[in-house]
Amino acid sequence: MDRRDADALDAADPLARFRDAFDLPPGVIYLDGNSLGPLPRAAAAQVERAVRQEWGQGLIASWNTAGWIEAPQRLGAKVARLIGAGPSEVAVADSTSVNLFKLAAGALSLRPDRKVIITEQGNFPTDVYVLEGLCAQAGAMLKVLPPEEVMAAVDADTAAVVLTHVHYKTARRWDMAAVTQAVQAKGALMLWDLAHTAGALACDLNGAGADLAVGCGYKYLNGGPGAPAFLFVAARHQAAIRSPLSGWMGHAAPFAFEDRYRPSGDIRTMLCGTPPILGLAALEAGLDLQLQADPKAVEAKGLSLCRLFIQLVETRCAGHGLVLAGPREMADRGLHVSFAHPEGYALVQALIARGVVGDFRDPDIARFGFSPLYLSHADVWDAVEILREVLESRAFEAPQFRTRAAVT
Amino acid sequence: MDRRDADALDAADPLARFRDAFDLPPGVIYLDGNSLGPLPRAAAAQVERAVRQEWGQGLIASWNTAGWIEAPQRLGAKVARLIGAGPSEVAVADSTSVNLFKLAAGALSLRPDRKVIITEQGNFPTDVYVLEGLCAQAGAMLKVLPPEEVMAAVDADTAAVVLTHVHYKTARRWDMAAVTQAVQAKGALMLWDLAHTAGALACDLNGAGADLAVGCGYKYLNGGPGAPAFLFVAARHQAAIRSPLSGWMGHAAPFAFEDRYRPSGDIRTMLCGTPPILGLAALEAGLDLQLQADPKAVEAKGLSLCRLFIQLVETRCAGHGLVLAGPREMADRGLHVSFAHPEGYALVQALIARGVVGDFRDPDIARFGFSPLYLSHADVWDAVEILREVLESRAFEAPQFRTRAAVT
Repeated sequence: MDRRDADALDAADPLARFRDAFDLPPGVIYLDGNSLGPLPRAAAAQVERAVRQEWGQGLIASWNTAGWIEAPQRLGAKVARLIGAGPSEVAVADSTSVNLFKLAAGALSLRPDRKVIITEQGNFPTDVYVLEGLCAQAGAMLKVLPPEEVMAAVDADTAAVVLTHVHYKTARRWDMAAVTQAVQAKGALMLWDLAHTAGALACDLNGAGADLAVGCGYKYLNGGPGAPAFLFVAARHQAAIRSPLSGWMGHAAPFAFEDRYRPSGDIRTMLCGTPPILGLAALEAGLDLQLQADPKAVEAKGLSLCRLFIQLVETRCAGHGLVLAGPREMADRGLHVSFAHPEGYALVQALIARGVVGDFRDPDIARFGFSPLYLSHADVWDAVEILREVLESRAFEAPQFRTRAAVT
Repeated sequence: MDRRDADALDAADPLARFRDAFDLPPGVIYLDGNSLGPLPRAAAAQVERAVRQEWGQGLIASWNTAGWIEAPQRLGAKVARLIGAGPSEVAVADSTSVNLFKLAAGALSLRPDRKVIITEQGNFPTDVYVLEGLCAQAGAMLKVLPPEEVMAAVDADTAAVVLTHVHYKTARRWDMAAVTQAVQAKGALMLWDLAHTAGALACDLNGAGADLAVGCGYKYLNGGPGAPAFLFVAARHQAAIRSPLSGWMGHAAPFAFEDRYRPSGDIRTMLCGTPPILGLAALEAGLDLQLQADPKAVEAKGLSLCRLFIQLVETRCAGHGLVLAGPREMADRGLHVSFAHPEGYALVQALIARGVVGDFRDPDIARFGFSPLYLSHADVWDAVEILREVLESRAFEAPQFRTRAAVT
């Protein structure tokens, strides 16, 4: 196998045209779109319009005339098309952490006679932390179990199971339909975190019968740093669910300034404060771009990139101590690939110094994301060649690559 | 009195130079900066830099190299200088509603043997709604009392009193030091909402001994539509306070990915999810501008504008049914002026059509904000002349001014 094989795969890539829609720095192979997606060219223009025209010239009137007030629902309807939800089942607001709090609390409100929330050990930390905080306040019990014990633990006390569809470290993918069905068979609700799913995999929440979901705007949706997040509430739950974060944007008539809270009864029930318009403007550009691509083609190309990366690392970098940390089967994984290495941190830094941007996750994981809209199989080939050079030269042993930054 | 008197006041205005720092549309007298502050010219450039350079070129590295990860604290330290707080007592994050939830819950955590939160009837609705949601979840009791009954109701069961320093409708100003002292004398905590205070009045939280505060980024701080909000926790409470929204940004070591939540123990304990970088970039430009002005001069000029507006409306528009709805004494008020009028909604719309932008608050309040950095006394004169013309011509009776928009 050589680089021409990668080129041949690229020649048949139905998504190749999307590369030009991104403003990526020259000389960089960006394998960290699973942490922060790059800048869609349209996002820069859309943010500038939001700032100079809508805010600067339209001022307060833009809440009505520029569609600001409907933005959480308008963007929600766009996200919905990427995750198999109905247009009125998704809203964009707040951060993933805040949305998880709202929806897990909402699950408790829908199952008032059940007091247990179950999640898995090794879930993304903020998910576990937020559930800890919620359960302490709401008088519920959080069970954090090894993944293989989660399903057996679901019982008549379980209000909800909270799992991240694609694991942030290993990329292991849960079977969404099977897990949802098994959880619901016990009368509990299923809440999915789609942080590493939306924009990456062909996701079908309603096909799986999911109850609730949250997800992130700044990873595969390319919504910009700290972009607003999304939340999904199945239509059948919207009239009954309650959010403890009952801010004015969730009120049935926000501008009637009524004395008492009265939930809207639709997806807006899960809104809270004033929508973050500049962040929403950037995210909308990312969504509009993503919606031009067939989600099935996105998943297929992403998995093709992952397959090639694993194959090349295990052949061309053999003998250098890299061990695949995550599923080998494509059907069991998302679009990032993790390899354990005793010098994982320094290795990632040495790669970044050569323009191959991945990231590191404790204790020893070098993580590489394969976002399908702007990466090619040739990029994968080139990245592995640089990895091979770093390993063979042992360049990662240089002392400057061992200094930990605040954010890893 | 004529327009030359207004010009004379402007000639002595130490803040006159700030007008050029804003990009305001021609022909508009913008009296709604208390709802959405206008665009500081520097904000457009700062957002563009955040988008094109930091996000587009810096990509994930900008979390370290562009100061993204410290932004909540860096901006917090800037807000602190405007509200009389220490640099480590304020953070910028989330929305005002979400921050109020966190801090009111935090007050319950600091007073575990007390289960009552008190606020006033007629407080800004989202404040009441959020407290309703919190108390329902946390097993606490919310008492919503007429303002004159609030202080007498504070007792040994009271965990916290939550008041908006300047009332959103009437602009009535609470005596921050006296109220704080009286609340604390009963062992309760005082939580101030500074939405209409920060950037408007010379505020001294630590001088008043306040415990907790929240406030808004998009009003007098000119941070842009839906800008991130701020929160204040007095240093003496930071080690003990707990947030139920215990997301990863509040963890003592967010990137250690530990299994259990461990609060930072400083102001970051009140952070939750990933910071919204684009919104923070715009807000930082607004803050940097505001910090160039002496808060005492800002308050003095704002009150001078209010005094002139009230005086001119009550003389030049006499006999047209406008009734001042709020304090007449400058020491008792903030920087917006409300007049009740039976046709308040249509009146505001007719003014907007003539370039005088105020807003309407149910049931009959025409509200006008006097933000000191870009308004002049001549603007006040001109606005009142247009108001007089609208009243005398009864232009507001035209049917198109009666159609309610979604956002008022």
